[in-house]
Amino acid sequence: MYVYADNAATTKMRPSALAAYCETAKRFYGNPSSLHGEGQRAKALLTDYRGKISEILGCKAGEIYFTSGGSEADNQAVYSAARYGKAKGKTKIVSTAIEHHAVLHALKRLEGEGFSVVLLPVGERGIVSSEDVARELTPDVCLVSVMLANNEIGTLQPVREIGALCRKRGVLFHTDAVQAVGHIPVDVNEICVDYLSLSAHKFGGPKGVGALYARAGAPLFPLIEGGAQERGKRAGTEDLPAVAAMTAALCEAAENMPQANEKTLALRERLIDGLLKIPHCALNGDREKRLAGNINICFEGVEGEALLLHLDDMGVCASSGSACTSGSLDPSHVLLAIGRKHEVAHGSLRLTLNEDNTEEEIDYLIKAVKEAVERVRGMSCFWRDLQEGRKKFTFET
Amino acid sequence: MYVYADNAATTKMRPSALAAYCETAKRFYGNPSSLHGEGQRAKALLTDYRGKISEILGCKAGEIYFTSGGSEADNQAVYSAARYGKAKGKTKIVSTAIEHHAVLHALKRLEGEGFSVVLLPVGERGIVSSEDVARELTPDVCLVSVMLANNEIGTLQPVREIGALCRKRGVLFHTDAVQAVGHIPVDVNEICVDYLSLSAHKFGGPKGVGALYARAGAPLFPLIEGGAQERGKRAGTEDLPAVAAMTAALCEAAENMPQANEKTLALRERLIDGLLKIPHCALNGDREKRLAGNINICFEGVEGEALLLHLDDMGVCASSGSACTSGSLDPSHVLLAIGRKHEVAHGSLRLTLNEDNTEEEIDYLIKAVKEAVERVRGMSCFWRDLQEGRKKFTFET
Repeated sequence: MYVYADNAATTKMRPSALAAYCETAKRFYGNPSSLHGEGQRAKALLTDYRGKISEILGCKAGEIYFTSGGSEADNQAVYSAARYGKAKGKTKIVSTAIEHHAVLHALKRLEGEGFSVVLLPVGERGIVSSEDVARELTPDVCLVSVMLANNEIGTLQPVREIGALCRKRGVLFHTDAVQAVGHIPVDVNEICVDYLSLSAHKFGGPKGVGALYARAGAPLFPLIEGGAQERGKRAGTEDLPAVAAMTAALCEAAENMPQANEKTLALRERLIDGLLKIPHCALNGDREKRLAGNINICFEGVEGEALLLHLDDMGVCASSGSACTSGSLDPSHVLLAIGRKHEVAHGSLRLTLNEDNTEEEIDYLIKAVKEAVERVRGMSCFWRDLQEGRKKFTFET
Repeated sequence: MYVYADNAATTKMRPSALAAYCETAKRFYGNPSSLHGEGQRAKALLTDYRGKISEILGCKAGEIYFTSGGSEADNQAVYSAARYGKAKGKTKIVSTAIEHHAVLHALKRLEGEGFSVVLLPVGERGIVSSEDVARELTPDVCLVSVMLANNEIGTLQPVREIGALCRKRGVLFHTDAVQAVGHIPVDVNEICVDYLSLSAHKFGGPKGVGALYARAGAPLFPLIEGGAQERGKRAGTEDLPAVAAMTAALCEAAENMPQANEKTLALRERLIDGLLKIPHCALNGDREKRLAGNINICFEGVEGEALLLHLDDMGVCASSGSACTSGSLDPSHVLLAIGRKHEVAHGSLRLTLNEDNTEEEIDYLIKAVKEAVERVRGMSCFWRDLQEGRKKFTFET
């Protein structure tokens, strides 16, 4: 059996999205900046897609800027608010310990330029507290950046409360919504956000395209300079076929969301129940306040990569955390942030489902993971040490 | 008749490229950073495409970094060399007056950060002199950036001579080859270049993808930060379907280049001969040292936008210059750089052909442009002033 359970890393393109790509590439190949009919038809479509996406997010079309993906959108939002803040003498940024590296590395760079960055803890549930955010909102804060849903453990952050706080204090608020858009309802007004990043390939759209919502009036500086595309905020010929495909995917995702989530949630619960029967393991992150498709579990005495390879042999596509950092030997910063010890964090498994998964696949996943964990533990010195009492278990059976 | 003659703005995707996109999106949707089979298959293909592109450019696979397009690649090259130079106390950059805005605007930004930028003139032929470059190569120069072929007038720059000079003096050399790659043979070793930017949609590949060649050892800093993709130099999930399509397009373009150029060149000459029979006009840029597909002509007493609209009515897709700046009322910086007066520069027409154009189309273009010019002149006060001797003609009949 083949089971793709790595939808947080990337999704297969929805057939409607691929069809939109092909149709657009064939029929509307003009450069939207060109004055002739071919260009103007492309421009009109671009406007149309911008409108559709803005409608889903509850904003105005002119507040959507197309980018090459989530990382670019994250970078542009963070750097824009920082540059604006610096000009006003505000150089403190508040964020969390579990952000995506597209935010964390941008913040690291800003630290090197004299900004002070506070990464708030998230506790063992993997959720930042809005009281902690409130406490850090001193007058020198130029930006708060808190993701909507975490990419590793799927936990949902209290962005609505944080947004309200920031709006009240006049502080710019960015949310990395890459894992959320297309999966849960997202309305930029409800969360009082100034910037929001999204990526198409996380909801059945194509890779290489995403968008940045920037509230009208929020400072925005180009990350990529050149032509005057995207109202001068993002240079480079617009990738109309990809935007068409992203729009098709998002519209479909938004329309099917309630049913998709209901089905995915039932699959997730069945999977979590099945997996938690394996001895000495624990779910990472809050069980309720998480994305419908996300399961992330630590197994004691298991090396995550070995587990993945065994699963791969059994036809299961899974991950140990973020795809962006796979290959790195460091344990996940997210799992460390929720208090997992290094050796436990190394034994993590992330399975991310969507509505295309089936109950048969879930039952197969449970069986496959159980078998793989047993096999890996059978070869693990660390497991023997635990079993024979030379080391202590973290999780009860 | 419908004639698409704006291939410098963007090209229609080659069927082979679109097929590669679809096949890859359907069959190889894994995230190349994922450890499972689906991811590793995607990674292997990415490596394969990188190898094919590097083979065509004459470099090593590890010297190719995939980007979202030419503007991003231009920005990253320029900022990387500048940042490295600044750390060594070298803050002078030498470039030309006719670069693409993706280079010029990046340089403008660097000027704001204390760099001194020299934009060399290009003379009426639209070609920079390598002697002028040599003269500016003082010890404080950290970067020379000279495009391979101009996007408006198609003139080919003496990059081989400039590259040799820079290599000899140990100065980093970048070339924006967006209009050249896929159209003329480009070998990074022959031109001794340290950085080279290319964009897929200029040679029948998809929009939204390009590449930066950075010579092994040349300083390179990420423009987009986050995950460790592209050896830590460009964050964001790799857009494998687009890279597959770009590779297919480039391979096809490279293979057909001699025949394509022979055909395109014959069409261009037929078109130039036909258009120059229209009174009071002149070709912009050197007639020989230009891209096979590029025609750029100034018509006196003509407003370029009006000309384009008339042509559009006749089914002709053309441009007045760069698509990136259309809509702006400023005359082309390239035409001003070759010495055209403001009012003459405003009357420019760019027609960019490829091997898919036909002789019938060329003859139609000649007829259509002649008609359109006459119509526009018939409504132009400026033309009446010229005709009645109140203003002086720049170009003879």
